Amino acid sequence: MRQNALFQLGMDLGTPSTSRKEDIAFESPVSVDAQARDDHFVVRNGVRCAGAHLIIDLYDAERIDDLDHIEATLRRCVTAAGATLLHIHLHHFEPNGGVSGVAILAESHISIHSWPEASYAALDVFMCGKAEPDKCVPVLREAFCAKRVAVSELLRGQGA
Amino acid sequence: MRQNALFQLGMDLGTPSTSRKEDIAFESPVSVDAQARDDHFVVRNGVRCAGAHLIIDLYDAERIDDLDHIEATLRRCVTAAGATLLHIHLHHFEPNGGVSGVAILAESHISIHSWPEASYAALDVFMCGKAEPDKCVPVLREAFCAKRVAVSELLRGQGA
Repeated sequence: MRQNALFQLGMDLGTPSTSRKEDIAFESPVSVDAQARDDHFVVRNGVRCAGAHLIIDLYDAERIDDLDHIEATLRRCVTAAGATLLHIHLHHFEPNGGVSGVAILAESHISIHSWPEASYAALDVFMCGKAEPDKCVPVLREAFCAKRVAVSELLRGQGA
Repeated sequence: MRQNALFQLGMDLGTPSTSRKEDIAFESPVSVDAQARDDHFVVRNGVRCAGAHLIIDLYDAERIDDLDHIEATLRRCVTAAGATLLHIHLHHFEPNGGVSGVAILAESHISIHSWPEASYAALDVFMCGKAEPDKCVPVLREAFCAKRVAVSELLRGQGA
């Protein structure tokens, strides 16, 4: 059984849904003193990074063609995470009723793209600073009555 | 050496920068005939999915505090990928000069968040349909003179 199949079955063994990774060009990393730097990086789970990026898949989800519900849910996520909304934009596709929406935050962004015909929605929640992206997961699960929710966390900008 | 350290050194062994993955609740997957379904899913590298989501990290990058340059670059990416721009919004942060920007596409989105003080920018390029997200990578590398570019590909919505 392929790893991807294992992941889909909820039996992920630590391998992500990543099918390809490349690292183009490379120069020696510069040693930095994270404590001494005056920047906006955070330490999450002991790792210094630019922010946590959650990749969230909702399967067997409902109301993912409802533009107003999606916007309200994104706004609830922003509040739940303690983030600050700067801009929000949603687009409704025809004829399938899918929605693409992005909330730009002071802490980065939340995006959603939905495929109602497959009862599937792909989201990502990227937050830096003191915001708590994990708080969005139960909001999304409840709002869209998703029977399965898969979450992967990427700690972006490690070593930058 | 931790896997994360290996990844940062460009010696990734197949493990991503993902530090956590959870799969909340689960019901038996329903067998579907990908060919028979009238939806907008695509087959990429033999895998049926909603779209390809590239996670792109630019290290030792330049001009990532230049709002106009970033907008022009995102627009070049859209063209290079053969995608359709629906909406674009960028925000300039003070005092560090960082930029958050998102281009919403008919095919999903491109986002960028930059930390000029760390010469680092986090992007993601999510595209479904016939668009070619890989075409954005050389555009970004050149535009921001990034000395290192790390790319991971997630095939979203497998099994949906």
